Amino acid sequence: MKLATLNIGGPVAAVVSERGYLPVADLLPGAPGDVATLIDGWDGFAPRLRDAVGAAADGDWRSYAREALLAPLPKPGKILAIGLNYVDHINETDFAAPVHQVWFSKQVNSVHGPYADVQLPRAAAETDYEVELVAVIGKRGRHIGEGDAPAHVFGYCVGNDVSARDWQMRTPQWVLGKSFDTHAPFGPWITTADELGDPHGLGIRCTVNGERRQAADTGRMCFSIWQQIAYLSQVMTLEPGDLIFTGTPAGVGLGMSPPTYLRPGDVVRCEVDRLGFIENRFVPEQAPNH
Amino acid sequence: MKLATLNIGGPVAAVVSERGYLPVADLLPGAPGDVATLIDGWDGFAPRLRDAVGAAADGDWRSYAREALLAPLPKPGKILAIGLNYVDHINETDFAAPVHQVWFSKQVNSVHGPYADVQLPRAAAETDYEVELVAVIGKRGRHIGEGDAPAHVFGYCVGNDVSARDWQMRTPQWVLGKSFDTHAPFGPWITTADELGDPHGLGIRCTVNGERRQAADTGRMCFSIWQQIAYLSQVMTLEPGDLIFTGTPAGVGLGMSPPTYLRPGDVVRCEVDRLGFIENRFVPEQAPNH
Repeated sequence: MKLATLNIGGPVAAVVSERGYLPVADLLPGAPGDVATLIDGWDGFAPRLRDAVGAAADGDWRSYAREALLAPLPKPGKILAIGLNYVDHINETDFAAPVHQVWFSKQVNSVHGPYADVQLPRAAAETDYEVELVAVIGKRGRHIGEGDAPAHVFGYCVGNDVSARDWQMRTPQWVLGKSFDTHAPFGPWITTADELGDPHGLGIRCTVNGERRQAADTGRMCFSIWQQIAYLSQVMTLEPGDLIFTGTPAGVGLGMSPPTYLRPGDVVRCEVDRLGFIENRFVPEQAPNH
Repeated sequence: MKLATLNIGGPVAAVVSERGYLPVADLLPGAPGDVATLIDGWDGFAPRLRDAVGAAADGDWRSYAREALLAPLPKPGKILAIGLNYVDHINETDFAAPVHQVWFSKQVNSVHGPYADVQLPRAAAETDYEVELVAVIGKRGRHIGEGDAPAHVFGYCVGNDVSARDWQMRTPQWVLGKSFDTHAPFGPWITTADELGDPHGLGIRCTVNGERRQAADTGRMCFSIWQQIAYLSQVMTLEPGDLIFTGTPAGVGLGMSPPTYLRPGDVVRCEVDRLGFIENRFVPEQAPNH
């Protein structure tokens, strides 16, 4: 199944199919209207929701402009992201291949819609893209073994780990450079783990203004998603709705010669096989919003 | 005013005075029962709440064991923490004095009560303490000037930025070493900014088993709290309820010769003048909770 959050006079959880969109609350009266609560109680809702989807008539499905799609989860509790997780990407940076997994986090204000305009910050000069496969945690856990990790994933989507390189490299800590407002667009929807199967071995691509920049295979991660979940959960309890950005392959602007950063009007499209694509125009940040 | 969250068959927002505790919902029928929602609508609630506190009889106030105090905010949207922000602490580490503010984040699972037992993780060998003054954001904003920063703070409390040094230093990114479950105890309550006045110039102290380890003055921060808010808000919108851990002075276990980390049964007390103290016993992490 695929779950999206649509802006229909406010955020509304909806099932996505080739026939269109159908709000969860219409399919299953009394069901939660937001994706976070649905994920939290998924084992209870899923069978009835599947039945309702199967019973829906073609005419029940609606179409919306893609701009109606919001971030599938507007307020994830955690956004964890692994750095340097594809060999070819490590080689294009000045960093050494890590012995241990390198983790940073993006702050919740960076969450952004899959087709919404992304800010080129007033305070940053070197804004860059990073296509990533994003895993969404479904089941709470700590000390999760690699073998148990798949059962803790609710589903997958596509993300752009937008990075302000000047801020990222200003100190050894990457968090600020990774956390500008709007710098974590993801979506376009969450494809459930049972529908996708193995998340490794999928084509992953990024274009800027139609020009191919990144193209790889998620099977080429240094640390698999199962290893990532096992490692993180040694430290912290993973909760339903937590996001894991699983690393980017080679081809970012930082790695070009000379480094080439995003400019006003650039359109970045990030895509992963079977998960769809997100596409964001980069525009100068406007006046302060406080 | 002082606001706490009490565990009375569930989390309940309460006003704290020298006479005891009084649930906000008892003082102001219809008011939100949680501190996060109170902060979000504070300008509307504060005058009526002050009147109600003034009108409360001595007999209305109740007493609770200190163990009833929970983290004042159970799910902050962000927990931002500055590193290397007191000169004497920089000198005790191997780090150089930073030109730019060095920021990392703690994940929300690290939130913990002011008097609750803290985990010595099974996966970490070098657990350390860091007493910090914690600022709680009250008013949303981006690009906040230093002069406007005080108006964006709701209040202040005491925190312990518990750190697993082995994990913190394993890669250049500190996030995992700072984010173990239970490793951000804070409280005991939030003292509003108008009651405290200037947060710089307060005594800040930490003891382990009654032995003085850290003792300094918050006026000795390298970057003031106003500079911190101005800097962070160049990057991200700060939201009501966000926490800022403002740095620790010298005296951590990492800086001792030889480095001395916390052991089972150790009791760490963190205190800031006029904000009270928190006190946590460190105990081995028990069996996995998933």
